[in-house]
Amino acid sequence: LYRSDASILIVDDAPTEYEDLMVEMLKELDIPFLIFINKVDILGDKAMNLSTIYEKRYNAPVLLGSALRKEGLEDLGEILLKIIPTDDEIPFLSDLVNGGDLIILVVPIDLGAPKGRLIMPQVHGIRDVLDAEGVAIVVKERELRYALMSIKQKPKLVVTDSQSITKVISDIPEDVMVTTFSILEARYRGGLEYSVESIKAVEELEDGDEVVIMEACTHRPLTEDIGRVKIPRWLVNHTGADLRFRIISGKEFPRLEEIENAKLIIHCGGCVVNRASMMRRYRMAKRLNKPMINYGVMITYLHGCLERCISPFGMEVKV
Amino acid sequence: LYRSDASILIVDDAPTEYEDLMVEMLKELDIPFLIFINKVDILGDKAMNLSTIYEKRYNAPVLLGSALRKEGLEDLGEILLKIIPTDDEIPFLSDLVNGGDLIILVVPIDLGAPKGRLIMPQVHGIRDVLDAEGVAIVVKERELRYALMSIKQKPKLVVTDSQSITKVISDIPEDVMVTTFSILEARYRGGLEYSVESIKAVEELEDGDEVVIMEACTHRPLTEDIGRVKIPRWLVNHTGADLRFRIISGKEFPRLEEIENAKLIIHCGGCVVNRASMMRRYRMAKRLNKPMINYGVMITYLHGCLERCISPFGMEVKV
Repeated sequence: LYRSDASILIVDDAPTEYEDLMVEMLKELDIPFLIFINKVDILGDKAMNLSTIYEKRYNAPVLLGSALRKEGLEDLGEILLKIIPTDDEIPFLSDLVNGGDLIILVVPIDLGAPKGRLIMPQVHGIRDVLDAEGVAIVVKERELRYALMSIKQKPKLVVTDSQSITKVISDIPEDVMVTTFSILEARYRGGLEYSVESIKAVEELEDGDEVVIMEACTHRPLTEDIGRVKIPRWLVNHTGADLRFRIISGKEFPRLEEIENAKLIIHCGGCVVNRASMMRRYRMAKRLNKPMINYGVMITYLHGCLERCISPFGMEVKV
Repeated sequence: LYRSDASILIVDDAPTEYEDLMVEMLKELDIPFLIFINKVDILGDKAMNLSTIYEKRYNAPVLLGSALRKEGLEDLGEILLKIIPTDDEIPFLSDLVNGGDLIILVVPIDLGAPKGRLIMPQVHGIRDVLDAEGVAIVVKERELRYALMSIKQKPKLVVTDSQSITKVISDIPEDVMVTTFSILEARYRGGLEYSVESIKAVEELEDGDEVVIMEACTHRPLTEDIGRVKIPRWLVNHTGADLRFRIISGKEFPRLEEIENAKLIIHCGGCVVNRASMMRRYRMAKRLNKPMINYGVMITYLHGCLERCISPFGMEVKV
């Protein structure tokens, strides 16, 4: 259910506890819904009555029809389209680029990178620069200094992989905007604000606290896995606290008991799930009052440069 | 069969006309093969005899074994690996790039381009520049002049989409190397040399000649399809001849009767088939003595700039 963008509650009688429960769940998951009163051909006059009852009780759009006679189905699609969240397109980085701007994209090529490829956020970044009439300069981290020397003006923005952030920052002028592909992804998928808000929870971690690492994918972890090894190590170093880590992977929505003890959730970029799905996870965390931080935001924070990496979006860290 | 990289002829008796025919086909298609004499457990002494006969008759490696008893199968893999063509890795463009070189990649974004993406040869090109420690500067055709003004040194190489080649050439200095993504693909897939060799056939086209347009994919043609509309139009303009065009699409190897009247074959980049498959198509064309030219080679030739676009590879056009 939590994966739905919208829901239809089909009924043919007065609401019971079951309908109450369903609607409560839908509202809790923040899933827009409509109520379809089926079998109007049998219900007759009773149908209009039911319509009023449902409308009052659940404050949702009610539609009358008959699946058997295929009546009322045309309106269904129309109403669904109205209630589905429009999912306002958040730009990936094109809003930071004006025509003619030079944008440097730092793309480390590690051993695990498949031959002849770039990963999706890198391609997305290049494409967005082109769409905004900019010039995309793509380099590995070692060629960054050289690229800077080869251009006549300062770049408008440097985007890098989180793992190269400290090296990149040491290589670029202080007045050049910088951010990471992960932070751009977090913003694009609607999780940047809550991630930044949640940062204060890092400073409140104490011995014995549980930190949940949540991965949307079920990849076989690498030996030096960023989520399972590096982030926990950096976090322990930063807080000095004896933390307990729990890993939850998969596209399935986590069960409540898996996260109820978490003092902090650290969530991967979510490149394998869609934006609506990531936004729902952030809504879940907010609803449960659990701080949740995106990997990229966490990494830059633990490296002392989150402030600078979110300033391009007019945001700041409040700890 | 023509899609195989290697073949195993399994026999358990003396060779007949059928085996002769099979081997002839394999040799004609240039598919390496070995002969597996099966059922040695039943054949007994006769097996060694057969081995000598097969080896002499077909001049191919012969292996004895029994599928039933699973004997001789270990050696099978080893011999197969030996006879499969090693398919020497032709670089995409990294051999043209030295560390620190600035490479400009011109990437037109047309209306058909899917949002947030780049096409495979573009990504491959960027990645190859990074692998060779170069700096990849990616722009749309309209920003090319601006990008050239923004860098302190001349680029080593400019790569563009075939369709922007004339605009790109007018924008760059004469001593800068230039080529197209299609030509790089043709080289990478082993068809550049034969394509260039085949160019002279263009100048020999006469009224009534049949030209075959061969597409490996079965996409729904666009209104201004490059292969079906633009190339034929340019070719007719260039030659002034009243040509007949025949379209063959699909991954299937064309039947002989489909191409036997062709005076010229123009083949797409073949991005949906693998390199071995494209190389086999070029071998087919050579065997039938049919000139075959890759789309990108054809387009640059018809725009009068093939010579310049292949000079980076030390090649020249002989017409």
